[in-house]
Amino acid sequence: MNQVEFINGKTRVYGIVGDPIEQVRSPEMVTWEMQKRQNNAVLIPMHVARDEFDSVMPDIMRIQNLDGLIFTIPFKARAIALAKTLGPQASQIGAINALKKNSNGDWSGEIFDGVGCVEAFKRRGIPIHDKRLQLIGLGGAGSAICVAMAYEKPKLMRLFDINPLTTERMVKMVNTISPQTIVEVGAPHADGIDILLNASPVGMLSDSRLPLAVETLKNGLVVFDAIVMPENTPLLTLAIDCGCEVVRGREMMLGQISKIVDYFFAP
Amino acid sequence: MNQVEFINGKTRVYGIVGDPIEQVRSPEMVTWEMQKRQNNAVLIPMHVARDEFDSVMPDIMRIQNLDGLIFTIPFKARAIALAKTLGPQASQIGAINALKKNSNGDWSGEIFDGVGCVEAFKRRGIPIHDKRLQLIGLGGAGSAICVAMAYEKPKLMRLFDINPLTTERMVKMVNTISPQTIVEVGAPHADGIDILLNASPVGMLSDSRLPLAVETLKNGLVVFDAIVMPENTPLLTLAIDCGCEVVRGREMMLGQISKIVDYFFAP
Repeated sequence: MNQVEFINGKTRVYGIVGDPIEQVRSPEMVTWEMQKRQNNAVLIPMHVARDEFDSVMPDIMRIQNLDGLIFTIPFKARAIALAKTLGPQASQIGAINALKKNSNGDWSGEIFDGVGCVEAFKRRGIPIHDKRLQLIGLGGAGSAICVAMAYEKPKLMRLFDINPLTTERMVKMVNTISPQTIVEVGAPHADGIDILLNASPVGMLSDSRLPLAVETLKNGLVVFDAIVMPENTPLLTLAIDCGCEVVRGREMMLGQISKIVDYFFAP
Repeated sequence: MNQVEFINGKTRVYGIVGDPIEQVRSPEMVTWEMQKRQNNAVLIPMHVARDEFDSVMPDIMRIQNLDGLIFTIPFKARAIALAKTLGPQASQIGAINALKKNSNGDWSGEIFDGVGCVEAFKRRGIPIHDKRLQLIGLGGAGSAICVAMAYEKPKLMRLFDINPLTTERMVKMVNTISPQTIVEVGAPHADGIDILLNASPVGMLSDSRLPLAVETLKNGLVVFDAIVMPENTPLLTLAIDCGCEVVRGREMMLGQISKIVDYFFAP
């Protein structure tokens, strides 16, 4: 029949908006998840120039069969202005990475970076509630992970970021979301910790550093790294050598994709 | 790997713009043609409301990885305003159905309905040059077929449309494009004709009428019908019964798709 099977006139369109765009993985991964669930939908890359974002996005959102958008660098904070209503985590963090058109035509936004991390732990059957967490890095992904983890009501969250003002802001946020959680601040360590989470860029690509000063990690510690490339960061390599259970950045990405597709297609 | 193979961050995006959009066949057929040629590209449906077309299209065209658009009902005439430069047939007809971004960022437009019809004849090895044609219907598709056929310099073109002003306009156009072609006007017939072309809607869907008053057609006549549904219109059914060679609307559509993809990816 000289035709592809994955797109037709009835296909609902989703996009990932970024600048640059070529490095994104959502088109192949989110489209796979949507089509696996029998949705006639695709997610396309949308390269929007950063100085044109505010002027062109409202008109792009007028495409009648465009039902949702994902935002990546550098648009997560600016995209919040496109949402008429916000989910709880987007309100707290002040950024969104997913925007969906509701049945009444209004657009709602939420951020799923942290939700994806929590989902990765759930899929592994690793509980967070009542556990003691060390979180390193409170930037874009780190602050989202901090908020999502706080909703799980851990016993203790020890926070570290190179920017003390960011750290202070996240301490207040954890106190608001989960008053029962003990919050500590200071140089990162793994003593008395159940789950060690790196959301800093230390260890990315060819960076051979560890994000905290340790020579060994105790068996029984769970170690997570938000970094996707390399798959085994220096921190995860050490953790594996020490017999720790590790959760990878790719699992967070898959968890996030699943949660975003849930959000897009929720009634 | 939990990912589809047909789209990623580097995919170039094309769209078909119409209102309504669900009935279009270009997404599956043009995407097939592009991917068959090893282009990392997809063509998505874009439903733009008719009263928003003029305001939103310029911003949609700011998507940096959007390289081309096809226009369908009701936008072929209005879309011409989006093109900085026009191909020869678009200039003559005053409408476009394809718009492409050039390497300098400017957009060029052309209309391929007629080109697709000529391409269908070429693929069949049926010559048009020096032949005697009867063309019935000079609306959107018909005027485009008229212009494209005139470029092939037939010996005679006999034109009929229910609107005499339209017919008069097309007579002038054929005279301009091919001064050597004899142009006749009047009720359609097949006497002394080599190729009979129907571009009127008569015979579409459940319409059982013929577009001209005949009871038989002479063997050796070539009969074309631009109608896609049904595949065998009353005219084509009669032609087949009379032993004529027939060319179908679907062949014109395939010819057009091929020519549009050539245009999109021409250096």
